[in-house]
This record gives sequence, C-alpha cells and structure tokens, in this order.
Amino acid sequence: MVAFDMEDPPSAVRMAEELGSADGNFAIKVGRPLEMQTGKEIISRIRDATDIPVIYDGKIADIPYVSAKIAEIAYDAGADGVIMHAFVGADAVREVVDLGKGDVITVIEMTHPGSVEYLEPISERLIQMVSGIGVDGVVLPATRPERVKRLSELLESESESETYIISPGVHAQGAKPGDAVTSGADYEIVGRAIYRSENPKDSAERIYREIIDRLRGD
Amino acid sequence: MVAFDMEDPPSAVRMAEELGSADGNFAIKVGRPLEMQTGKEIISRIRDATDIPVIYDGKIADIPYVSAKIAEIAYDAGADGVIMHAFVGADAVREVVDLGKGDVITVIEMTHPGSVEYLEPISERLIQMVSGIGVDGVVLPATRPERVKRLSELLESESESETYIISPGVHAQGAKPGDAVTSGADYEIVGRAIYRSENPKDSAERIYREIIDRLRGD
Repeated sequence: MVAFDMEDPPSAVRMAEELGSADGNFAIKVGRPLEMQTGKEIISRIRDATDIPVIYDGKIADIPYVSAKIAEIAYDAGADGVIMHAFVGADAVREVVDLGKGDVITVIEMTHPGSVEYLEPISERLIQMVSGIGVDGVVLPATRPERVKRLSELLESESESETYIISPGVHAQGAKPGDAVTSGADYEIVGRAIYRSENPKDSAERIYREIIDRLRGD
Repeated sequence: MVAFDMEDPPSAVRMAEELGSADGNFAIKVGRPLEMQTGKEIISRIRDATDIPVIYDGKIADIPYVSAKIAEIAYDAGADGVIMHAFVGADAVREVVDLGKGDVITVIEMTHPGSVEYLEPISERLIQMVSGIGVDGVVLPATRPERVKRLSELLESESESETYIISPGVHAQGAKPGDAVTSGADYEIVGRAIYRSENPKDSAERIYREIIDRLRGD
C-alpha cells in the first residue's frame, strides 16, 4: 500500500496510473496533506486513474455525525475505504460502519513514540471493540513488529470474520520491508521511499518483491 | 464560535461575511466536511471574507510529521488556529506547536457518548501534558458542564500562561447556551442552530446575547 503523502496532485495522478500497471499487489492510501490541496476531487482523479484500491487516510476522529459525513464524502468521491481512529469510541465507529459504503479501517496503534503514551495502554480494548462492531481492517505499526504479532493474534481470536491488518512505518520511519507481514500484517504501507524516489514504479515493485521474499523466507 | 459544518462553499463564504458585521464577539470554525469540498481554498476564501478569527477544525490525529504538514497547510491558507487531538501524544502536539504559525487547540474530551470510553479516563493526564507543552486552547464538551468545571480548574492550576477553553455541543447536541461559559469555558461553539437557520446572522446574535445574559446572571 503506497502512502500518497505528497502535496502535488498531478504527480499523484501520474503515480496512480503507473502503480496500476506495476507488477505486484498494490493499493493507494491518500493522505490529508494531498487531499487538502483540492479537497475530495483528488480522490476522484486518483480513482479514475487506476483500478487498484484507493483508501482515504482521513484519520477521522470526530463525533459520530461528523465522522460519518467525512467518510461519506470520501466514499462518494471514489474511495474504497477510509481510515478512522477507534479511540473516539464505539458509537463513532459504528456510525461509519453503518454507512455500508466501503471498507472501514480503524487505527489501533501508531508508529511514532507518542503512540505508547495513550494508545498502547488501551489497544487491546480497542481491538475487542472494533472486532465486536465488525470493521474491515485495522492499522498496526510496522515499527513495532512485536505489537503487530501480539495484536494480530488477539484480533484473530476476537473477530468472527476476516479482518485485515495494514502497517505503516516501512523505510522512512525505520521498519524494514517484511517486518510487519512476517509478524501477522496483511499489507505494509510505504510512503516517502516510493513517492520521493526517482522512479516510483520501480521502487514500488522492488519493495514489493522484498516483502514477498521475506514472507517466503520465514 | 460558529461551526461551519455545512458542505456548500458559497453559503459558507456568505455567512463569513455576515458574521464579520454581526453584533458580538465571533469566530469561525471550519469543519472537514466543508474543507473537503475544495481543499484549503475554502479556508482562504473565508479568511478573505471576514476579519474575525478562523479556526481549522481538522481534528488532526496523525504522526508528528503528517500532523505538522496538515496544520501548516491550514495556517498557510489563512487559518489563525488549528484543532488537533492530544491523545496522539506529546511529540505530535509539540511538533505542531513548534511550527509557531498560529494557535494550537487540543481536544481533551468530546461531546458524544463515545468520549467517556477512552478519552474521559485520560483527560486529566492530557490536560497536564498539553499544559506542559503550552498549547493556546483546549476543547471541552458543553454537553457535560461538570467536566468543563473540573477540567477548567485543573487547566488553570497546571498552565503557566492563559489557555482558553472552547466548548462544542450547544443546541443540536443538547447543551443550552451559557452552560459551558458559566462552568469555565471561554467560547461556546454552535453549528447547526446557526448555519441551518433562515437568518444565520440573527441567530448568531441572539444566541450570543443568551450566552452573555447567562454569564451576567451567574
């Protein structure tokens, strides 16, 4: 999953086109610094540029009414899924899930040091809560493979249906390709190492192969 | 503080112009459902339409690097302040404060039922953390005046400088005008009761007077 955290809409659209024909299994995560350049329009332009999944990483964390509004705007613009925070509570998560318009992926723990202060102590409860509601996916930090392992096991025991795990933090934030998938994650998220490289498509394919090789090696 | 949670940019700009000449002390809070229509441009258009303060209610809740990016885009577009979550940790809050580009207002507790699940148990620690960093303002729920009272007292004892309190939840979410300011808040946030009314300027002035009357009566 390639994090589109650049702030230049034309290069984002070009990269979406390139990824569509890249060799591997890719998805696009549209970050807010990009979305804020044009609003929802960039989600639609990326949607039109490629067939691979497009996720709006809105880190939605508002009251239920506004959280659902934000998610709905993203879905209607063409997003296949949205990322929201779980810590805002069960009612907010449920309101977005109840839209029934696309995947809901909830943040459980994050990659930065601050994540251990308030998120890590409640993350097991968050897993239980979102499993009960039935979200489609969760976010766990590739920078802490031992947390991915522990929480993916808990997720498996709590969820009645399949819930996928996406893990940011690969490369620029210090995780190595494969660290997260060999600990239980389903997708690794790579941003700067791809969109800032001279040839994003080549970089994406190379990192994808590294991840697959690690997965086969374990 | 009027919450601009509508999704129609032209009516938002018109309302910004009207509020600029309204009788009272007003500010504008730009919500994400509005921002997502055009991206940062709507912040600039509202900024150009009025002289009163414009706050971007981004509910920013990302890793430090991305949180600062989002805040910077909003400040550069003309926002006087941004709203971010405190629970993402001290490093994220500090990175936005260190931009030094405008006010930083951190969410401590919210108005909806889900806020009591994970935010309320840590809110006193969040107050201590953001007081230590030196944010400009905090968000406390007008729907729970007893929480505003308790946390405003804690804020006063912890903060070395003046930290203002803004409180959403008035009218549509059940709080009465004046509930929060008589409990220690500095600004009350009103959304639907103003932007959905037939004459938003009249409604804003009327609710403003109600708040002032409550404050004088106590």
